[in-house]
Amino acid sequence: MSGSFIALDWGTTRLRGWLMGPDGAVRDDMASDDGIQLVKAGGFEALLRARLAPWLAGDPTLPIWMAGMVGSRNGWIEVPYVSAPCSAADLKRGAVRHQLDGHEVWLVPGVSHESADGFFDVMRGEETMALGAGVRDGLICQPGTHSKWIEMRDGAIVGFATFITGELYAAMSASFIARLAEAPDNEEPGTAQGRIAARAAGGVLRGLFQARARVLGGVLPACGVKPFISSLLVAGEVAGAQQLYGAVTPTLIAAAPFDALYRQALGGRVTLVTPQNALLEGLRGIREAVL
Amino acid sequence: MSGSFIALDWGTTRLRGWLMGPDGAVRDDMASDDGIQLVKAGGFEALLRARLAPWLAGDPTLPIWMAGMVGSRNGWIEVPYVSAPCSAADLKRGAVRHQLDGHEVWLVPGVSHESADGFFDVMRGEETMALGAGVRDGLICQPGTHSKWIEMRDGAIVGFATFITGELYAAMSASFIARLAEAPDNEEPGTAQGRIAARAAGGVLRGLFQARARVLGGVLPACGVKPFISSLLVAGEVAGAQQLYGAVTPTLIAAAPFDALYRQALGGRVTLVTPQNALLEGLRGIREAVL
Repeated sequence: MSGSFIALDWGTTRLRGWLMGPDGAVRDDMASDDGIQLVKAGGFEALLRARLAPWLAGDPTLPIWMAGMVGSRNGWIEVPYVSAPCSAADLKRGAVRHQLDGHEVWLVPGVSHESADGFFDVMRGEETMALGAGVRDGLICQPGTHSKWIEMRDGAIVGFATFITGELYAAMSASFIARLAEAPDNEEPGTAQGRIAARAAGGVLRGLFQARARVLGGVLPACGVKPFISSLLVAGEVAGAQQLYGAVTPTLIAAAPFDALYRQALGGRVTLVTPQNALLEGLRGIREAVL
Repeated sequence: MSGSFIALDWGTTRLRGWLMGPDGAVRDDMASDDGIQLVKAGGFEALLRARLAPWLAGDPTLPIWMAGMVGSRNGWIEVPYVSAPCSAADLKRGAVRHQLDGHEVWLVPGVSHESADGFFDVMRGEETMALGAGVRDGLICQPGTHSKWIEMRDGAIVGFATFITGELYAAMSASFIARLAEAPDNEEPGTAQGRIAARAAGGVLRGLFQARARVLGGVLPACGVKPFISSLLVAGEVAGAQQLYGAVTPTLIAAAPFDALYRQALGGRVTLVTPQNALLEGLRGIREAVL
C-alpha cells in the first residue's frame, strides 16, 4: 500500500493535519485549536469537512489516518485500547474504520499495558509516535503532561510507564511552595540545584519544599523558583525511569522547551526525533503494515 | 520559674489558647478562626485583648507565650529563626519579648537548618511541639501540609527535613489525575495499592498517574482514587524519610486523620503524642529553661 493520505494528530487542545504525497513527503499542513474538548458530540464530521475541505476536494477518495485523544471516550469514536506488546500491524488491526463522504477514515487505537509490578498504564497518540521514531530495540522518552517511557523490541511496543511530570509541574507552580517565585524566570540559578535535589535522599516530596525554603534561606533567588521545580521534576522522572529500565539513554521525541530540559537531565548525547516526524512516520507505518 | 501562663498556638488559619494553672494543668481553653492571615497589620494587640479578656482580667501580670506563624514575616512581630542544633534554652534566648497592658508576651522563634546534603529548611510551631514530645533521643514525625521529620539528641533539635505531602495531596486531588474520583471516599480499595505503589520503582511521579490509569483499567474503583493518592504520598514520605534517617520508627505528633494514616504507613507500634500536649509541654519547657 502507498499513495497519498491525510495524517491527523487530533488531541485534547489541538488539531494538526498534514497532506502526505505518494512519495511520503508533506505537501501541505494545517493546525487549529479545534481540540476534541471543544468539539460537541456529533460535530466531528462537520469539523473535518470544514478544516480539510481543500484537501478532500482535490482527491475524492483520499484516506484520512488519525491518532490521539480523538479515539478516546471523550472524542469522536471510542477505539478500544490494544494491549502491549503490540506492533504496527496490531494497531492497524485495532483501528476503527469509518466513512466520510467517500473517504476512508481510520482512527488508530491507544495502547494499554499492565507491567510486571502491577502498574496499569494507557496512552493515546504516543504509541503512533513511538512506532515512527525509528527505534527497533531500545527506550523512547516522550515528555509532556503525562510523560511516557516506552520500551521497543523488534520494532514493537513491549511496555511503557507514565510519569505525571508536566501535570505536577503545572500544579506545583500554581501552589503555595511557588509563591515566592518572581518573573521573569532565570534558568541558571535553579536548574543545577533542582537536578541535584532530585537525586538526594527523600525524593521529590522533600525536594519540592526547597522551592520555598531555599528562597527564605537566600540560597535560591526568586527568579529561580520555577526553573528549580521544573528541573527537580524532570530529573526525578529520569531517576524514576532509570530505576525501572536501568541507565539506558532513550531516544527523545520532543519539541521545545522539553528537548533542552530533557537533554540536560539525561546528561549525554540523545537522539532527538521531532513529534511531527515521529507521528507521520508512525501513521505511515501503521497504514502500510501487512496484516 | 513556674506559675500560671497563657499558651497560644497562633497559626495561619487558627488561634488556639490555653490557660495554664501553676500546677501545669489546663484551666480553660479557647479556639477561634482568627488565623494570622485574617488579622490586619496593627490588629494583633486588639485581637488578643478581645479574645483573652476574661483570662487577662483575672490576673493583671499573667504572661503569654505563643508559638507558630504569628512570629513570621506575615504575622505580628517577625522573630528571626534560630538555627539547629538548638535546645529549649536557645529558643528562649531567641524569643521576642513584648508588653501588652502589663502582660509579658513572648513569641517563640522558628528554627532553620541546613542539612549536610545542602537542603535548607524552616519551621515555625513544630519546634515547640518537638521539644514537648518527650523525645530525648530519636526521631519525631509531624504530619501536615508540610510534614516535618525532626531529629532529637540530648533533648535538643539537631536537624529536620520537610516533605510537602499535605500540599501535594491538596493539589493532586484537585488536579486532572483525580478527575475520575467519586465520593464518598472508601479507604479500603485504594490504601493498600497506594502503599505498594509508593515503594515501586519510579517513585511518586510514576505512582500518581495510577490514580487515573487504574480506574480506566478497572483495577481501582472510583471511590478509591483519593485514598490511593493519600496513601501513596504518605508512604512516599515515609520511604523518603527512611532514606534519610534509616528505618527508625518516629514518635508521631498527630491528630485525626493523620494519626491513623501515618500509623498504618509506619506499619508498627508508634508512640503517639497529641499536638496539644506537645505544644503545651513545649511552651512550658521553653518558658522554664534556665539561661
